Amino acid sequence: MTSFHMDTLKKWYREHFDVLFRDYCTFLRFQSMSTDPAFAQETKRAADWVCSYLNQMGMQASLWETSGYPVVFGEYKAGNDCPTIFLYSHYDVQPVDPIELWKHDPFSPHLENGVVYARGAADNKGQCMYVMAALRAFLSLGKEKKINIKYFIEGEEESGSHGTLEALKTHRDALRADALFVVDAGMLTPNTPAVTIGVRGIMTMEIALQNSNADLHSGIHGGIVLNPNRAFVTLFAQLWDETGRVQVPGFYDAVQKISEEERACLDLSFDRETYTRNFGVHAFCPEGEEQGFVTSNWFMPTLEMNGMSGGYTGSGFKTVIPSVARAKISCRLVPNQDPVTIAKAIAAYLRAKAPKGFKVTIEEGHGAPAYRVSPTSKVVKEATRALKSAFGVPAQCILCGASVPIVHDLAIASGAEAVLIGVGLDTDDIHAPNEHFSLKQLEQGFLTIATLLGDYAI
Amino acid sequence: MTSFHMDTLKKWYREHFDVLFRDYCTFLRFQSMSTDPAFAQETKRAADWVCSYLNQMGMQASLWETSGYPVVFGEYKAGNDCPTIFLYSHYDVQPVDPIELWKHDPFSPHLENGVVYARGAADNKGQCMYVMAALRAFLSLGKEKKINIKYFIEGEEESGSHGTLEALKTHRDALRADALFVVDAGMLTPNTPAVTIGVRGIMTMEIALQNSNADLHSGIHGGIVLNPNRAFVTLFAQLWDETGRVQVPGFYDAVQKISEEERACLDLSFDRETYTRNFGVHAFCPEGEEQGFVTSNWFMPTLEMNGMSGGYTGSGFKTVIPSVARAKISCRLVPNQDPVTIAKAIAAYLRAKAPKGFKVTIEEGHGAPAYRVSPTSKVVKEATRALKSAFGVPAQCILCGASVPIVHDLAIASGAEAVLIGVGLDTDDIHAPNEHFSLKQLEQGFLTIATLLGDYAI
Repeated sequence: MTSFHMDTLKKWYREHFDVLFRDYCTFLRFQSMSTDPAFAQETKRAADWVCSYLNQMGMQASLWETSGYPVVFGEYKAGNDCPTIFLYSHYDVQPVDPIELWKHDPFSPHLENGVVYARGAADNKGQCMYVMAALRAFLSLGKEKKINIKYFIEGEEESGSHGTLEALKTHRDALRADALFVVDAGMLTPNTPAVTIGVRGIMTMEIALQNSNADLHSGIHGGIVLNPNRAFVTLFAQLWDETGRVQVPGFYDAVQKISEEERACLDLSFDRETYTRNFGVHAFCPEGEEQGFVTSNWFMPTLEMNGMSGGYTGSGFKTVIPSVARAKISCRLVPNQDPVTIAKAIAAYLRAKAPKGFKVTIEEGHGAPAYRVSPTSKVVKEATRALKSAFGVPAQCILCGASVPIVHDLAIASGAEAVLIGVGLDTDDIHAPNEHFSLKQLEQGFLTIATLLGDYAI
Repeated sequence: MTSFHMDTLKKWYREHFDVLFRDYCTFLRFQSMSTDPAFAQETKRAADWVCSYLNQMGMQASLWETSGYPVVFGEYKAGNDCPTIFLYSHYDVQPVDPIELWKHDPFSPHLENGVVYARGAADNKGQCMYVMAALRAFLSLGKEKKINIKYFIEGEEESGSHGTLEALKTHRDALRADALFVVDAGMLTPNTPAVTIGVRGIMTMEIALQNSNADLHSGIHGGIVLNPNRAFVTLFAQLWDETGRVQVPGFYDAVQKISEEERACLDLSFDRETYTRNFGVHAFCPEGEEQGFVTSNWFMPTLEMNGMSGGYTGSGFKTVIPSVARAKISCRLVPNQDPVTIAKAIAAYLRAKAPKGFKVTIEEGHGAPAYRVSPTSKVVKEATRALKSAFGVPAQCILCGASVPIVHDLAIASGAEAVLIGVGLDTDDIHAPNEHFSLKQLEQGFLTIATLLGDYAI
């Protein structure tokens, strides 16, 4: 089979739109908020529905039970000698708080001016829906195509993926693939598609510095008791030098330079004025000033203090020397940095530098490595080609400073190189009230995935 | 008249004890919590009762109305050529939360094993009660004594003394005195009386460092936006050097060395092991290590961070770059340090050192200068002599690292030198549930004040 002609795909989509839209609305009605146990039944019903939907279109789909929510796993088998494409989506959604800011019931999809408003309209049911539509088109239009397809839809993306990670181990043999497409990403603008070739890893940690048993009167005890807040600022100020470089020994050991290939395909320019206008930011990282802000965000690890507290922080004043001061810190990691190694290095550094006498408590939280693929790899080329066909304009290669831990795990489990694709927009209000997704995005997504499946080079 | 014989005072006290105890209980029943407007009526009733009580015993007492609660001002006039003693107490009390920890109703005095349990039993109604008892004894036993007495009982000690400070201005002519005794202090142990010859001043300030308009995602923005928490620790760490010395220019300019007289009469020893056992403190101030902890607490100013906050501090993790980081700082000041000058110096230092681009907001709170009197001054000698007579053992001169702002204001208003005296104990649970005061303390206080009035050298 040659690749699908764009007109064929558009015709098929037009003919099937009413049914697809009805199915999309059915999907959106499930209150599959995986983080809230009150919606366990609804979340499982969403899984059942997706599984049936895949089976009805001709995929071989089943539920993989886990200690959390099941993974829906659908397959189309062309043959052992054919390449295998692995697609990823998730059927769970974020909670809806603050509910009072929604203009319509978040689980009763509302269509207005070509835009669908509902929780999950974009993240990730909208993106999942167009993948399913593309699979349906593929199965009805292109059965002679010699590719195997594996579609993995988890139900815990918004709540830690604990059960999903078990499934990656227990079903490892079923996961082997040649190319991995995580369909949970976005475009740069409504008409500028993007291929995300890397995400940063993450490591979180909580630290407490305790001195006295209880808060003490700052007059009676001041000048005697070393204030944990003073010790705190003195200690944590030593994490960075004045150029912003993290002072923990070994922190940058595994960091690699940007390759020539990456530099050639990525747009590393940064518009400071727009940034200031959008976010009110006037103080920029010195490390970003030096090496470029986009480089700093995409290619360098960070160490951020996400939270700190110590003593009285309510209104008015309470002149205490607090018993304890606390920090929540996290790192964004780049490829080859191991979260556990980084956590141990930071913990050792803080313990070594902490003033004598303090009880230092450190809790290491969760960690996940970064993922990055070469911009010249086959998976990037296939994604780029499909997006260009669907949009008529070239796709931009980008990285993402945030973390999508599952990408690394899926890449390991499948043995395939991965990219993140999708037609999300910054303005979709995902995780927020009045989340929405346009019918235009739905069609763009459909055309992209259908083209990807039809065009995939053997 | 010669001074009262101790036996005479004890006999008078024994004969009047039942009535005094009944009156003490009446006083304790007023719910005079000045900080809570719901108890305004009760607070005013307490003032009325004290005023009547003083008038009934032969003082000339009246209420000085203010924008807050009235001052009760009682006088005994011996003549213009006689010395004038000024006594200070307060009739308001702390709130009673947490009420569930009280074993008895805080406003129904409960006597058990010679100890009275009630809110205000010690602070300050107990101390006020024995002053009134001593005045009563003085008036019935020693009218030929040639001293003038002024007794100033405020009703806002626990809520900022705003109205009281007005009264100090509007009634300045009535306040002139030769010696000022603030009867709101304590002993070292149940049998070791003390004269407090100084308290530190105070200055409070709140600082906010803001960058972005709202909290930002630490993955999407990390490496670009300078985190206010990072800026915060970097900035505030510059307030002290590694020896604990405050780095604000001019901070120590007005600080005086300990005089030989002070050194000769004060016990500056410090028992680190007991301190650690009592408070769980293992990290001590380096500035205290160097110059001695008691010296550091009594004779040196401090700069403490009483509270700090920035970003997410709840349970779990939220990987934000916060919009703003906040500090509440305060200084304890020593004589000659001006709170306003110190506040301006700190604000200027922080503004100068703050990283470029941050919006720095500084709110200067309230301030009050320190007070200290020479250990060789007449007021100290009189207080020491009275305590020695009443207790049979020498009184120890001490200072207090805490702040009692009214002392400085009263000293200015009266033109007199001041000491703080009283028979409070660290174990009285003032400001806490089950506050208590022993009948032994009540009698010790009575004997002290009666002796002071009887012995005062013309």
